[in-house]
Amino acid sequence: MAERAFQDDYPDELSHCYGCGRLNEHGLQLKSYWEGDETVARFTPRPYHVAIPGYVYGGLIASLIDCHGTGTASAAASREAGREMGTAPPLRFVTASLHVDYLRPTPLGVPLEIRGRVKELKGRKVVVTATVSAGGEVCARGEVVAVQMPDHLAPGPHQGAHQ
Amino acid sequence: MAERAFQDDYPDELSHCYGCGRLNEHGLQLKSYWEGDETVARFTPRPYHVAIPGYVYGGLIASLIDCHGTGTASAAASREAGREMGTAPPLRFVTASLHVDYLRPTPLGVPLEIRGRVKELKGRKVVVTATVSAGGEVCARGEVVAVQMPDHLAPGPHQGAHQ
Repeated sequence: MAERAFQDDYPDELSHCYGCGRLNEHGLQLKSYWEGDETVARFTPRPYHVAIPGYVYGGLIASLIDCHGTGTASAAASREAGREMGTAPPLRFVTASLHVDYLRPTPLGVPLEIRGRVKELKGRKVVVTATVSAGGEVCARGEVVAVQMPDHLAPGPHQGAHQ
Repeated sequence: MAERAFQDDYPDELSHCYGCGRLNEHGLQLKSYWEGDETVARFTPRPYHVAIPGYVYGGLIASLIDCHGTGTASAAASREAGREMGTAPPLRFVTASLHVDYLRPTPLGVPLEIRGRVKELKGRKVVVTATVSAGGEVCARGEVVAVQMPDHLAPGPHQGAHQ
Protein backbone atom coordinates (compact mmCIF):
# COMPACT_ATOMS: atom_id res chain seq x y z
CA MET A 1 0.00 0.00 0.00
CA ALA A 2 1.38 3.39 -0.94
CA GLU A 3 2.24 5.76 1.88
CA ARG A 4 -0.34 8.46 2.52
CA ALA A 5 0.71 12.04 1.88
CA PHE A 6 -0.01 14.77 4.43
CA GLN A 7 -2.43 16.31 1.95
CA ASP A 8 -4.35 13.03 1.58
CA ASP A 9 -5.57 13.54 5.14
CA TYR A 10 -6.68 17.17 4.83
CA PRO A 11 -10.46 17.32 5.28
CA ASP A 12 -12.38 17.62 2.01
CA GLU A 13 -13.40 21.25 2.60
CA LEU A 14 -9.72 22.19 2.96
CA SER A 15 -8.56 20.22 -0.08
CA HIS A 16 -9.25 22.75 -2.83
CA CYS A 17 -5.88 24.53 -2.64
CA TYR A 18 -4.40 25.24 -6.07
CA GLY A 19 -0.97 24.11 -4.88
CA CYS A 20 -1.79 20.98 -2.93
CA GLY A 21 -5.51 20.29 -2.82
CA ARG A 22 -6.32 16.79 -4.03
CA LEU A 23 -9.76 18.05 -5.12
CA ASN A 24 -8.42 20.91 -7.31
CA GLU A 25 -8.27 19.34 -10.75
CA HIS A 26 -6.57 22.42 -12.23
CA GLY A 27 -3.92 22.58 -9.51
CA LEU A 28 -0.48 21.15 -8.79
CA GLN A 29 -1.65 18.51 -6.27
CA LEU A 30 1.65 18.51 -4.39
CA LYS A 31 2.16 15.54 -2.04
CA SER A 32 4.42 15.73 1.01
CA TYR A 33 5.77 12.92 3.21
CA TRP A 34 7.93 12.39 6.28
CA GLU A 35 11.43 11.09 5.72
CA GLY A 36 12.91 10.83 9.20
CA ASP A 37 12.90 14.34 10.67
CA GLU A 38 12.69 15.92 7.25
CA THR A 39 9.76 16.14 4.89
CA VAL A 40 9.97 15.61 1.18
CA ALA A 41 7.83 16.24 -1.89
CA ARG A 42 8.63 15.62 -5.52
CA PHE A 43 7.20 17.51 -8.44
CA THR A 44 7.99 17.62 -12.14
CA PRO A 45 7.08 21.01 -13.60
CA ARG A 46 5.07 20.99 -16.78
CA PRO A 47 6.66 22.28 -19.99
CA TYR A 48 4.75 25.56 -19.72
CA HIS A 49 6.07 26.26 -16.18
CA VAL A 50 8.91 28.12 -17.83
CA ALA A 51 10.65 31.34 -16.80
CA ILE A 52 13.27 31.87 -19.44
CA PRO A 53 13.83 29.10 -21.97
CA GLY A 54 15.06 25.92 -20.27
CA TYR A 55 14.41 27.05 -16.69
CA VAL A 56 11.59 26.72 -14.17
CA TYR A 57 9.32 29.67 -13.33
CA GLY A 58 10.21 31.18 -9.95
CA GLY A 59 6.58 31.62 -8.95
CA LEU A 60 6.10 27.87 -9.26
CA ILE A 61 9.12 27.28 -7.02
CA ALA A 62 7.62 29.70 -4.48
CA SER A 63 4.31 27.81 -4.69
CA LEU A 64 5.99 24.44 -4.06
CA ILE A 65 7.82 25.84 -1.03
CA ASP A 66 4.61 27.44 0.24
CA CYS A 67 2.49 24.29 0.13
CA HIS A 68 5.25 21.98 1.30
CA GLY A 69 5.85 24.42 4.16
CA THR A 70 2.25 24.54 5.36
CA GLY A 71 1.97 20.76 4.90
CA THR A 72 5.11 20.25 6.98
CA ALA A 73 3.72 22.59 9.64
CA SER A 74 0.51 20.60 9.80
CA ALA A 75 2.34 17.28 10.04
CA ALA A 76 4.78 18.59 12.66
CA ALA A 77 1.99 20.03 14.80
CA SER A 78 0.15 16.72 14.61
CA ARG A 79 3.29 14.80 15.56
CA GLU A 80 3.95 17.22 18.44
CA ALA A 81 0.39 16.73 19.69
CA GLY A 82 0.74 12.96 19.43
CA ARG A 83 -2.06 12.86 16.91
CA GLU A 84 -2.51 11.15 13.58
CA MET A 85 -2.95 13.40 10.57
CA GLY A 86 -6.60 13.50 9.61
CA THR A 87 -8.01 13.36 13.12
CA ALA A 88 -10.47 16.11 14.06
CA PRO A 89 -10.31 19.00 14.55
CA PRO A 90 -7.92 19.52 11.63
CA LEU A 91 -4.56 21.14 12.40
CA ARG A 92 -4.30 23.17 9.19
CA PHE A 93 -1.94 26.08 8.63
CA VAL A 94 -1.91 29.17 6.50
CA THR A 95 1.12 31.14 5.35
CA ALA A 96 2.00 34.31 7.23
CA SER A 97 5.17 34.94 5.26
CA LEU A 98 7.18 33.30 2.51
CA HIS A 99 10.78 33.93 1.54
CA VAL A 100 12.65 32.38 -1.37
CA ASP A 101 16.29 32.80 -2.39
CA TYR A 102 16.89 31.69 -5.96
CA LEU A 103 20.45 30.40 -5.87
CA ARG A 104 20.76 29.29 -9.48
CA PRO A 105 18.45 28.73 -12.44
CA THR A 106 16.36 25.59 -11.93
CA PRO A 107 16.44 23.34 -15.00
CA LEU A 108 13.09 22.52 -16.57
CA GLY A 109 12.27 18.95 -17.57
CA VAL A 110 13.54 17.04 -14.54
CA PRO A 111 11.85 16.12 -11.25
CA LEU A 112 12.35 18.60 -8.42
CA GLU A 113 12.79 17.53 -4.82
CA ILE A 114 11.46 19.83 -2.11
CA ARG A 115 12.85 19.13 1.37
CA GLY A 116 11.48 20.70 4.51
CA ARG A 117 12.73 20.96 8.06
CA VAL A 118 11.03 22.40 11.12
CA LYS A 119 13.06 25.32 12.41
CA GLU A 120 10.65 26.40 15.13
CA LEU A 121 7.37 25.10 16.54
CA LYS A 122 5.78 27.29 19.17
CA GLY A 123 2.11 27.63 19.97
CA ARG A 124 0.16 28.22 16.77
CA LYS A 125 3.28 29.12 14.76
CA VAL A 126 5.60 26.81 12.86
CA VAL A 127 8.64 27.99 10.89
CA VAL A 128 9.74 25.64 8.12
CA THR A 129 12.88 25.91 6.01
CA ALA A 130 12.98 24.26 2.62
CA THR A 131 15.26 23.53 -0.30
CA VAL A 132 14.34 22.85 -3.90
CA SER A 133 16.82 20.63 -5.75
CA ALA A 134 17.22 19.37 -9.29
CA GLY A 135 19.53 16.46 -9.99
CA GLY A 136 20.88 16.64 -6.44
CA GLU A 137 21.84 20.31 -6.69
CA VAL A 138 20.06 22.87 -4.50
CA CYS A 139 18.59 25.57 -6.76
CA ALA A 140 16.48 27.51 -4.25
CA ARG A 141 16.12 27.89 -0.50
CA GLY A 142 13.02 29.10 1.25
CA GLU A 143 11.38 29.76 4.57
CA VAL A 144 7.70 29.63 5.43
CA VAL A 145 6.20 31.10 8.58
CA ALA A 146 2.99 29.13 9.00
CA VAL A 147 0.26 29.88 11.52
CA GLN A 148 -2.56 27.63 12.54
CA MET A 149 -5.67 28.54 10.61
CA PRO A 150 -7.91 30.92 12.53
CA ASP A 151 -11.20 29.25 13.43
CA HIS A 152 -13.25 31.78 11.45
CA LEU A 153 -11.44 30.74 8.26
CA ALA A 154 -11.81 27.04 8.72
CA PRO A 155 -14.89 26.19 6.70
CA GLY A 156 -17.49 23.83 7.99
CA PRO A 157 -19.16 21.23 5.77
CA HIS A 158 -21.80 23.80 4.77
CA GLN A 159 -19.28 26.26 3.36
CA GLY A 160 -17.31 23.46 1.81
CA ALA A 161 -20.41 22.37 -0.10
CA HIS A 162 -20.37 25.69 -1.96
CA GLN A 163 -17.04 24.94 -3.60
CA MET B 1 -4.52 53.14 -28.84
CA ALA B 2 -4.14 51.19 -25.63
CA GLU B 3 -1.03 51.81 -23.56
CA ARG B 4 1.69 49.21 -24.02
CA ALA B 5 2.59 47.06 -21.03
CA PHE B 6 6.22 46.49 -20.05
CA GLN B 7 5.81 42.86 -21.02
CA ASP B 8 4.55 43.76 -24.50
CA ASP B 9 8.07 44.97 -25.26
CA TYR B 10 9.99 41.96 -23.98
CA PRO B 11 11.69 40.28 -26.94
CA ASP B 12 9.91 37.19 -28.21
CA GLU B 13 12.52 34.74 -26.89
CA LEU B 14 12.00 36.16 -23.37
CA SER B 15 8.20 36.14 -23.54
CA HIS B 16 7.49 32.56 -22.53
CA CYS B 17 7.36 33.19 -18.76
CA TYR B 18 4.44 31.42 -17.08
CA GLY B 19 3.66 34.51 -15.05
CA CYS B 20 3.96 37.28 -17.61
CA GLY B 21 4.99 35.96 -21.01
CA ARG B 22 2.58 37.06 -23.72
CA LEU B 23 3.51 33.92 -25.70
CA ASN B 24 2.71 31.46 -22.87
CA GLU B 25 -0.87 30.47 -23.62
CA HIS B 26 -1.13 28.46 -20.37
CA GLY B 27 0.21 31.29 -18.22
CA LEU B 28 -1.08 34.30 -16.33
CA GLN B 29 0.04 36.92 -18.89
CA LEU B 30 0.41 39.65 -16.30
CA LYS B 31 0.66 43.20 -17.71
CA SER B 32 2.42 46.01 -15.84
CA TYR B 33 2.36 49.76 -16.49
CA TRP B 34 3.81 52.98 -15.14
CA GLU B 35 1.53 55.18 -13.09
CA GLY B 36 3.68 58.15 -12.12
CA ASP B 37 6.59 56.81 -10.09
CA GLU B 38 4.70 53.65 -9.24
CA THR B 39 3.92 50.66 -11.39
CA VAL B 40 0.61 48.90 -11.47
CA ALA B 41 -0.79 45.61 -12.74
CA ARG B 42 -4.28 44.23 -12.39
CA PHE B 43 -5.22 40.59 -12.36
CA THR B 44 -8.40 38.70 -11.57
CA PRO B 45 -7.59 35.22 -10.25
CA ARG B 46 -9.46 32.34 -11.80
CA PRO B 47 -11.95 30.40 -9.68
CA TYR B 48 -9.47 27.54 -9.25
CA HIS B 49 -6.74 29.84 -7.85
CA VAL B 50 -8.13 29.08 -4.43
CA ALA B 51 -6.33 28.50 -1.12
CA ILE B 52 -9.11 27.88 1.33
CA PRO B 53 -12.69 28.40 0.16
CA GLY B 54 -13.27 32.03 -0.77
CA TYR B 55 -9.64 33.14 -0.69
CA VAL B 56 -6.81 33.45 -3.20
CA TYR B 57 -3.92 30.98 -3.29
CA GLY B 58 -0.77 32.48 -1.74
CA GLY B 59 1.49 31.01 -4.40
CA LEU B 60 -0.43 32.97 -7.02
CA ILE B 61 0.06 36.16 -5.01
CA ALA B 62 3.79 35.41 -4.82
CA SER B 63 3.81 34.87 -8.59
CA LEU B 64 2.10 38.20 -9.27
CA ILE B 65 4.60 40.02 -7.04
CA ASP B 66 7.49 38.18 -8.68
CA CYS B 67 6.58 39.09 -12.26
CA HIS B 68 5.44 42.61 -11.45
CA GLY B 69 8.72 43.05 -9.58
CA THR B 70 10.99 41.95 -12.42
CA GLY B 71 8.86 43.93 -14.90
CA THR B 72 9.19 47.03 -12.73
CA ALA B 73 12.94 46.45 -12.49
CA SER B 74 13.20 46.25 -16.26
CA ALA B 75 11.14 49.39 -16.78
CA ALA B 76 13.04 51.31 -14.10
CA ALA B 77 16.42 50.32 -15.52
CA SER B 78 15.27 51.41 -18.98
CA ARG B 79 14.03 54.73 -17.64
CA GLU B 80 17.28 55.23 -15.72
CA ALA B 81 19.26 54.56 -18.90
CA GLY B 82 17.07 56.96 -20.85
CA ARG B 83 15.97 54.14 -23.11
CA GLU B 84 12.61 53.04 -24.40
CA MET B 85 11.46 49.56 -23.36
CA GLY B 86 11.99 47.18 -26.22
CA THR B 87 15.23 48.67 -27.52
CA ALA B 88 18.17 46.28 -27.86
CA PRO B 89 19.91 44.83 -26.01
CA PRO B 90 17.00 43.91 -23.71
CA LEU B 91 17.27 44.97 -20.07
CA ARG B 92 15.62 41.90 -18.59
CA PHE B 93 15.79 40.89 -14.93
CA VAL B 94 15.59 37.66 -13.02
CA THR B 95 14.60 37.19 -9.38
CA ALA B 96 17.36 36.73 -6.82
CA SER B 97 14.99 36.70 -3.87
CA LEU B 98 11.30 37.07 -3.18
CA HIS B 99 9.60 37.87 0.10
CA VAL B 100 5.86 38.02 0.75
CA ASP B 101 4.00 38.93 3.94
CA TYR B 102 0.38 37.79 3.84
CA LEU B 103 -1.40 40.41 5.91
CA ARG B 104 -4.95 39.13 5.59
CA PRO B 105 -6.79 36.58 3.47
CA THR B 106 -7.20 37.86 -0.09
CA PRO B 107 -10.79 37.50 -1.31
CA LEU B 108 -11.32 35.44 -4.45
CA GLY B 109 -13.58 36.69 -7.23
CA VAL B 110 -12.53 40.34 -7.41
CA PRO B 111 -9.75 42.06 -9.40
CA LEU B 112 -6.44 42.41 -7.57
CA GLU B 113 -4.23 45.46 -7.94
CA ILE B 114 -0.47 44.97 -7.69
CA ARG B 115 1.50 48.16 -7.08
CA GLY B 116 5.26 48.38 -7.30
CA ARG B 117 7.80 50.96 -6.23
CA VAL B 118 11.56 51.03 -6.79
CA LYS B 119 13.32 50.94 -3.45
CA GLU B 120 16.85 50.69 -4.80
CA LEU B 121 18.46 50.76 -8.24
CA LYS B 122 22.18 50.17 -8.26
CA GLY B 123 24.25 48.65 -11.03
CA ARG B 124 22.66 45.40 -12.16
CA LYS B 125 20.41 45.15 -9.08
CA VAL B 126 16.95 46.62 -8.55
CA VAL B 127 14.92 46.18 -5.36
CA VAL B 128 11.17 46.56 -5.82
CA THR B 129 8.53 46.65 -3.11
CA ALA B 130 4.97 45.72 -3.93
CA THR B 131 1.50 45.56 -2.47
CA VAL B 132 -1.41 43.39 -3.53
CA SER B 133 -4.83 44.91 -2.83
CA ALA B 134 -8.43 43.79 -3.19
CA GLY B 135 -11.20 46.36 -3.07
CA GLY B 136 -8.73 49.02 -1.94
CA GLU B 137 -7.45 47.02 1.01
CA VAL B 138 -3.84 45.83 1.08
CA CYS B 139 -3.82 42.05 1.57
CA ALA B 140 -0.14 41.28 0.96
CA ARG B 141 3.17 43.10 0.82
CA GLY B 142 6.23 41.85 -0.98
CA GLU B 143 9.79 42.62 -1.97
CA VAL B 144 11.67 41.40 -5.01
CA VAL B 145 15.42 41.62 -5.41
CA ALA B 146 15.89 41.56 -9.17
CA VAL B 147 19.22 41.26 -10.97
CA GLN B 148 19.90 41.92 -14.60
CA MET B 149 19.85 38.67 -16.51
CA PRO B 150 23.33 37.19 -16.92
CA ASP B 151 24.37 37.18 -20.58
CA HIS B 152 24.70 33.38 -20.67
CA LEU B 153 21.01 33.03 -19.76
CA ALA B 154 19.71 35.50 -22.31
CA PRO B 155 18.74 33.33 -25.23
CA GLY B 156 19.58 34.39 -28.73
CA PRO B 157 17.14 33.94 -31.62
CA HIS B 158 18.52 30.45 -32.23
CA GLN B 159 17.79 29.19 -28.72
CA GLY B 160 14.48 31.01 -28.71
CA ALA B 161 13.44 29.08 -31.79
CA HIS B 162 13.60 25.85 -29.77
CA GLN B 163 10.83 26.96 -27.43
